[in-house]
Amino acid sequence: MNHTINDLVSRRSCRAYSERAVEEEKLLEILKAGSYAPTGRNKQSPVIVAVEDGATRDLLSKMNAEIMGSATDPFYGAPTVLVVLADPSVPTYLYDGALVMGNLLNAAHALGVDSCWIHRAKEEFESEEGKALLAKWGLPTDLEGIGHCILGYRQADLPAPAPRKEGYVVRVK
Amino acid sequence: MNHTINDLVSRRSCRAYSERAVEEEKLLEILKAGSYAPTGRNKQSPVIVAVEDGATRDLLSKMNAEIMGSATDPFYGAPTVLVVLADPSVPTYLYDGALVMGNLLNAAHALGVDSCWIHRAKEEFESEEGKALLAKWGLPTDLEGIGHCILGYRQADLPAPAPRKEGYVVRVK
Repeated sequence: MNHTINDLVSRRSCRAYSERAVEEEKLLEILKAGSYAPTGRNKQSPVIVAVEDGATRDLLSKMNAEIMGSATDPFYGAPTVLVVLADPSVPTYLYDGALVMGNLLNAAHALGVDSCWIHRAKEEFESEEGKALLAKWGLPTDLEGIGHCILGYRQADLPAPAPRKEGYVVRVK
Repeated sequence: MNHTINDLVSRRSCRAYSERAVEEEKLLEILKAGSYAPTGRNKQSPVIVAVEDGATRDLLSKMNAEIMGSATDPFYGAPTVLVVLADPSVPTYLYDGALVMGNLLNAAHALGVDSCWIHRAKEEFESEEGKALLAKWGLPTDLEGIGHCILGYRQADLPAPAPRKEGYVVRVK
């Protein structure tokens, strides 16, 4: 099988991480792949915030857990969190942001880095606390959170993929 | 550079296609990669409709052009159109569908097949004509159109990628 196709098909979501940090050179490649995702009319409406600072990572984890009504770490111990946000004034922003997320997840897997999409970024950055973080990072406070791509290294083997549903593909010939 | 990262970064949108058909074995790999995109809680909310029949392809082109108020072919002559739709009762359906689109676009490029995301699938399948097509294909008529991944082979070289915007990535250390 083609190397890239194999990577696209074999990526799995990881929900238990060790403390091992993601190497700088791998992180740079993952971020680059994210930024090259296609966007509507090439408006490049998304932004990627790479959170490598432990205190900020833990703050996001706490905010995210509160939205869920939980006290656990929604980032499963992953040391690095890439937050994708996008400019909601661009009609395709949500699709654009999701494509960036997809490239981040796929690029991580290609480099042997484990990852998972964690939701509730929208609610996180709608809050006053979230807007304050955006301002601190020098970003417009009306950006909408699309998702978190958590990054790190797995603690144990990943489960086999679930079978694809029947009828996922319909052919019209 | 890692082979997959290179594919993710070098993919371009193609807007002029020859009549050359996409080979069956490549199409199957592209569809498989699409179906293995991650989805929220593994609900697999999207469906991929592979339109290879010329009459149906031309009908979708006409419907799409009318939404745009244009008489041109929004599919740029591409012979194959993959329509991604998703079940809007699943909270993550729009993100899920966009990730399927991303895998389709990336898989096509990995196999040397050109592609482009064409929008207005939402409006297309909100119409009575669109719902009639869904019913004809044996699909629920309340699916929401996410996008069209057009497939084929380019007529000319693709332009160089636009530079990425300044500030695409913010690092918080």
